[in-house]
Amino acid sequence: MPAVGMVGGGQLARMTAAAAVGLGATFRVLAESESESAALVTHDVVLGSHLSLSDISSFASECDVITFDHEHVPGEVLTALEADGVLVRPGSSALRYTQDKLAMRETLRALGVPCPRFAPVSSAADVEAFTGGRLPVVLKAVSGGYDGRGVWVCASAAEVEEVFSHGIALLAEEFVPFRRELAALVARSPSGQGAAYPVVQTVQVDGICREVIAPAPGLHEELAVEAEALGLAIAAELGVTGLLAVELFETRDGRLLVNELAMRPHNSGHWTIEGARTSQFEQHLRAVLDLPLGACTPVGSFAVMANLLGGTDPDIYDRYLHVMAADPAVKVHFYGKGVRVGRKIGHVTIVAGPDDDVDEVRDRARRAASYLRWGTEDGE
Amino acid sequence: MPAVGMVGGGQLARMTAAAAVGLGATFRVLAESESESAALVTHDVVLGSHLSLSDISSFASECDVITFDHEHVPGEVLTALEADGVLVRPGSSALRYTQDKLAMRETLRALGVPCPRFAPVSSAADVEAFTGGRLPVVLKAVSGGYDGRGVWVCASAAEVEEVFSHGIALLAEEFVPFRRELAALVARSPSGQGAAYPVVQTVQVDGICREVIAPAPGLHEELAVEAEALGLAIAAELGVTGLLAVELFETRDGRLLVNELAMRPHNSGHWTIEGARTSQFEQHLRAVLDLPLGACTPVGSFAVMANLLGGTDPDIYDRYLHVMAADPAVKVHFYGKGVRVGRKIGHVTIVAGPDDDVDEVRDRARRAASYLRWGTEDGE
Repeated sequence: MPAVGMVGGGQLARMTAAAAVGLGATFRVLAESESESAALVTHDVVLGSHLSLSDISSFASECDVITFDHEHVPGEVLTALEADGVLVRPGSSALRYTQDKLAMRETLRALGVPCPRFAPVSSAADVEAFTGGRLPVVLKAVSGGYDGRGVWVCASAAEVEEVFSHGIALLAEEFVPFRRELAALVARSPSGQGAAYPVVQTVQVDGICREVIAPAPGLHEELAVEAEALGLAIAAELGVTGLLAVELFETRDGRLLVNELAMRPHNSGHWTIEGARTSQFEQHLRAVLDLPLGACTPVGSFAVMANLLGGTDPDIYDRYLHVMAADPAVKVHFYGKGVRVGRKIGHVTIVAGPDDDVDEVRDRARRAASYLRWGTEDGE
Repeated sequence: MPAVGMVGGGQLARMTAAAAVGLGATFRVLAESESESAALVTHDVVLGSHLSLSDISSFASECDVITFDHEHVPGEVLTALEADGVLVRPGSSALRYTQDKLAMRETLRALGVPCPRFAPVSSAADVEAFTGGRLPVVLKAVSGGYDGRGVWVCASAAEVEEVFSHGIALLAEEFVPFRRELAALVARSPSGQGAAYPVVQTVQVDGICREVIAPAPGLHEELAVEAEALGLAIAAELGVTGLLAVELFETRDGRLLVNELAMRPHNSGHWTIEGARTSQFEQHLRAVLDLPLGACTPVGSFAVMANLLGGTDPDIYDRYLHVMAADPAVKVHFYGKGVRVGRKIGHVTIVAGPDDDVDEVRDRARRAASYLRWGTEDGE
């Protein structure tokens, strides 16, 4: 069996490690430290930096193909690896669109993909020209971000000025008053096979994904098909290998607009571990190994995933017992990360049957996540 | 999070390792060698012998609780560990029934559990007295076995003599002309909580489990309830902590008889990885950690598992590609074991929906397993 190396030791690599067990593929992780989420559970852990060409080169020499837990490996490192003959999936020509949002927007526009209106901006005056004075406006870092943030919704000229004070390259986008957010998750293999998961609804709070409902309740069949087709078309046009998550706005007038792209397993796909015939983690491995893709069909009627954020009490064990006892059908996933307020430390999933009600299952998932965080079911 | 140590590095430990990732429990394996199935994928591998008190003691000192991949740790080692204060689950007083089949039969009979008629035998004359001359008869090794075998179905006096020639302690059991074989899988935690999976049908060929259908098709509701109740009662009476698999005969006149017991994750429960809300591997971890047990409910309408046995061609990769391409809903599990003819090297599972037909899904699972083994769908 071939060996897959994943650069980055976060929870996505951790869950991919579990998926590799069944698949029989050898799985290695390049982690920053022994205590990272994936490094705690993976048999083959190599310590090194995702910024270092020599660290990744040496890691890749033990792997048949390398892939990524995040999009922070510098573009020049990726191209150097490829020049050295390393099989990098997705490749640098696709990954650049996750590292340069202006290039992503321009390419999607050229492909005719519906996007929010956008423009590169280098001053508050540019923003003023873009908005015609109508706020809020969305400013995005073209690459990376500042202090962990890459997106700012600015409701005043002062907020716009504040973002420019960071001195980073920016992009302005129209603020879309969406009905809700959706995500289309697809896989594409190097030989060109594609597979699409059912489109999900995502619920974000303060820019953090809190809840995913799969499939998106009440989504018009046409929009569902359009979103899946959009995901498959973008993956093919950008030459993505592995997973592509397309974050979408469903506008109030029933259109879809592409918000963000990610080329890796994605938070909006965690429900697939229990909820789909092939989990996104196995699917990503299949795709980067150019194995035939697995079925994306749901196994239940629907699934709800709620992210588990850290609270103030780091000792989660008693609350864990409570949640398991209170709802035996809740599947809790911990990432082995230390508890910090607001940090993603795990998630819970409930796969529902034909007689279950979406709102009731969402409520159960929320209560479990709230109890694990705060010790009360009404904490958030 | 507490740490669970599993003694034995086979495929059950391998699949338990994957289940531990989500649960967030630390998982360690005591394996004989680096190349054992579980040792290939587990982060914390300790090398040592399951026969050695000092190896297990030193392993256990790094764990909060120890449990087992198989039933081959000698009873005196188990009691010595317990005397040293090691948390051993299941405990020696339960595990002895998996190591002494005569004690198991006598205890089950005393509990009123329906079993085949049996008697200890020490000569062919004893067997003759037991059968009244009516063959076949089943001879079982009271403990362990001979050359990897522990059960002989003898159709002639010569075959009986042959078994006695091995010089091991034996038990005679009536040969039950069963309609089919079933298995009841239950979990019991130290605090006494019990949980039962749906009763499954198992299909054995030459004493090896080949196929499991969950739940058992067409099983009368009363028999299903009786089998689950039997499993829970035996687990409670014998003081089992963790999983208990009860292998059963369904007789032609509609009764249940207990054939064998196993106190660990069991081949008849592999379908639960994809097919139940809580996999047997997670359930075993929950039980030995005294966590609340998870729901045993199936997620689909039914599931079929087929074991994958080794064929003559050790290079399985091309056949793997074929099977994945031919049926994207087949979930293949490889154990990382070298291919040898007849050796269990993996399994395949298909979880079916409400519109699927049991015979058709069984056929798909069989074809996948056959192709992986022989390179043809009609190979077995």
